[in-house]
Amino acid sequence: MNPVLDYLRQHEARFISELCDYVRFPSVSAQPQHQVDMRACADWLAQHARQIGLTAEVCPTAGHPVVVAHTPRQTGARRPHFLVYGHYDVQPPEPFELWKSPPFEPRIEGRSLFARGACDNKGQHLAHLNAVEAYLKTGTELPCDLTFVVEGEEEVGSSNLAAFLQQHRAEFDVDAVVISDTGMPARNLPALTYALRGLTALEVKLTGPSRDLHSGIFGGSLDNPAMALCQLLGQLRDRHGRVAVPGFYDDVVKLTPFERKQLARLPFNETAYRKFLGVPRLFGEEGYTAWEQRAARPTLEINGLTSGYQGEGSKTIVPAWASAKLTMRLVPNQDPRRIARLVTQRLKQLCPPTVRLEVKAGHDAEAYLFSPTSPAAQAALRALQTAFGREPVLLREGGSIPIVTDFKKILGVDTLLLGLALPDDNAHSPNEKFDLDNFTAGMRLGACLWPELVAAC
Amino acid sequence: MNPVLDYLRQHEARFISELCDYVRFPSVSAQPQHQVDMRACADWLAQHARQIGLTAEVCPTAGHPVVVAHTPRQTGARRPHFLVYGHYDVQPPEPFELWKSPPFEPRIEGRSLFARGACDNKGQHLAHLNAVEAYLKTGTELPCDLTFVVEGEEEVGSSNLAAFLQQHRAEFDVDAVVISDTGMPARNLPALTYALRGLTALEVKLTGPSRDLHSGIFGGSLDNPAMALCQLLGQLRDRHGRVAVPGFYDDVVKLTPFERKQLARLPFNETAYRKFLGVPRLFGEEGYTAWEQRAARPTLEINGLTSGYQGEGSKTIVPAWASAKLTMRLVPNQDPRRIARLVTQRLKQLCPPTVRLEVKAGHDAEAYLFSPTSPAAQAALRALQTAFGREPVLLREGGSIPIVTDFKKILGVDTLLLGLALPDDNAHSPNEKFDLDNFTAGMRLGACLWPELVAAC
Repeated sequence: MNPVLDYLRQHEARFISELCDYVRFPSVSAQPQHQVDMRACADWLAQHARQIGLTAEVCPTAGHPVVVAHTPRQTGARRPHFLVYGHYDVQPPEPFELWKSPPFEPRIEGRSLFARGACDNKGQHLAHLNAVEAYLKTGTELPCDLTFVVEGEEEVGSSNLAAFLQQHRAEFDVDAVVISDTGMPARNLPALTYALRGLTALEVKLTGPSRDLHSGIFGGSLDNPAMALCQLLGQLRDRHGRVAVPGFYDDVVKLTPFERKQLARLPFNETAYRKFLGVPRLFGEEGYTAWEQRAARPTLEINGLTSGYQGEGSKTIVPAWASAKLTMRLVPNQDPRRIARLVTQRLKQLCPPTVRLEVKAGHDAEAYLFSPTSPAAQAALRALQTAFGREPVLLREGGSIPIVTDFKKILGVDTLLLGLALPDDNAHSPNEKFDLDNFTAGMRLGACLWPELVAAC
Repeated sequence: MNPVLDYLRQHEARFISELCDYVRFPSVSAQPQHQVDMRACADWLAQHARQIGLTAEVCPTAGHPVVVAHTPRQTGARRPHFLVYGHYDVQPPEPFELWKSPPFEPRIEGRSLFARGACDNKGQHLAHLNAVEAYLKTGTELPCDLTFVVEGEEEVGSSNLAAFLQQHRAEFDVDAVVISDTGMPARNLPALTYALRGLTALEVKLTGPSRDLHSGIFGGSLDNPAMALCQLLGQLRDRHGRVAVPGFYDDVVKLTPFERKQLARLPFNETAYRKFLGVPRLFGEEGYTAWEQRAARPTLEINGLTSGYQGEGSKTIVPAWASAKLTMRLVPNQDPRRIARLVTQRLKQLCPPTVRLEVKAGHDAEAYLFSPTSPAAQAALRALQTAFGREPVLLREGGSIPIVTDFKKILGVDTLLLGLALPDDNAHSPNEKFDLDNFTAGMRLGACLWPELVAAC
């Protein structure tokens, strides 16, 4: 291992310079005017992979192309095979005026590299490629085969990735997926994210009179759909912060004492967190810490409310209808369809006969759980420990990452989420940066991970 | 009296023709392109009043002019003096395509005259002018002085009327105001409207986080302002349909058995009313009939709800804020300011500490009550009986008519509301019409009313 780590140390300056080249491409997948830049960026990456010794191709999709690169295959028995996922597309840089330096002209200040895409996600998957370069250039044998899949549509919903994976299933005959695209809870606190929440969306509409009615002439003799909606939705959460829908928690897998202990290790300062959110007081399900509430417990959120008159001043009407957008964040083992059904049933039970109820199911995503005590997780934790020289933490994330479910469904494998982004890296915001210490730690992670994983699996 | 009634009968055809002339003016106060038509319409009315023997003037205001016409004054002792109010402006005619004939080309079909403004309000105040003409042309002595005040801004809020009344207070030294601009509950059911509801408006806003937050990353650890708003507003109405605000009903004057008996005489078909509103079931305060609920009981209505994402599909956020527009309809003796204060206090009591509450007071209007057993009311009922040949009903109306409060406050007098509009007259809608039988009954009312009023007061 030492030659690999030595190589990474020796070539650090060049790696940083190459990352600068990479982030100069304004590869904004959402903006049609950057179509050419997208292609140029993909070509640069494939060319770079080839230069360091991989075979690489820019593969077309219905949208932006996917770069696929393989480490040199050995003849003989099948070796363990892992897929490293990343994305070369970036968020739009707007608003430009908030950037201290132009988003596609990388600027280094101390140990930070400022540029759109530096952290999300170019720097993170380039670190893995650098580690592979170190193996190949030092003649150190990689204990496994690696396939890099770097897509160009992550920031616009990865809409062509599932079809691409289906089509190339044979080529992606892997044992696990590794993604560095999540976050670390703090500097020097490396993390394995082992669970994600799922979600299911519903749209609820209550209709009363056939048109907005004069509240003076008619008000009092018919139900007000906006009031009915408030009373209906208000019953879906109790005063202990729990979702008041029978059966909602039935399939929730309890947090183990081990998991709660791990989550308790995460840094948390209530005052700082409250100020960061801007709320007068925190609120959540009783009996759980804020980290548990936001990452490991299911919720029911109202995302939007619409009814009647919303302009300046007032309009004295009984509105014809009122509607709400709901999403339920789900935890592992909760079935999105079942939850949507339970909430719909509850709404029907509670809805008064004075209005008409309509519930429309929206999109959903399954929660993800990867056993934090599994051999692969333990291997990843050891690699994080070596790479960062710090004891890593186990993290659950409250959001959903649909591609993780795609990998599970299409390739049948689990994903190790080993993110390198810091909370202040400004992903999706002006002045995005990547921490160069995390860049080099990420390279060391890419060096240490494969032997650990191969030994464990 | 007979010569007056005979005259009205003899000249009916001409009166209808003159009403046709009057409604040909597209006097749409809301639309600047009709400024010239507004002035022409006011001139026509003043000229017509002069022709039949009144003195008349088109008086400028900051907006559209007011037509003021006086019956010839007699020398000697002060006689009773009444003000007849009307408005020559009309609602916009749009949408044109829904009219069976052009809105400003009067069409007579059976006993209906179709035109914008026919019923609201040109036909109704013209009937009173026709009655005065009959007095003057037949040499019958009017037992009182009459002043007609016909404004041009009723459909846009009468915003210059109060100032105009202030300015001309001396000229309007009247004993009561008479307005024919309300409705009759049904054909052949003449009505005296003796009470109006008031209102007070509030805007409620709950603010949570300083910006919309990702519901995956943060949801569960902070309150959702939209949910908090639903739970807050939902507590303002109990399951008996009563407003759940302490003190809300304290000042409500109970309906007398006489009033309830009168309201019970009004025609009501639950199925037809429910279908007319388009609701699956009626709903209102327990213990009161629909007529009582909509006309004589106070309410709290949500007029609008706004929060978070309202577009297509879903956006997985905890919205930064949620707001609602409320109006409370009030009944006589409820003080709008006090009610606004009570509701605000209740909101403050109920608001959880997890969100910030902001309540903004909007406009308000006092309720109006004119004793239905007073001599003037009894006189008006007798005149209605004679004019229509049917027993009149006593009506309360759920809406507010701010000018009635203006007359009370500025001139210190009560208003008799003797409306001639039928429920199917389509005021404010396409195919507005005026019933010609009500037009002639209105003229007879204008003939019979003054002797009755003078005798009673």
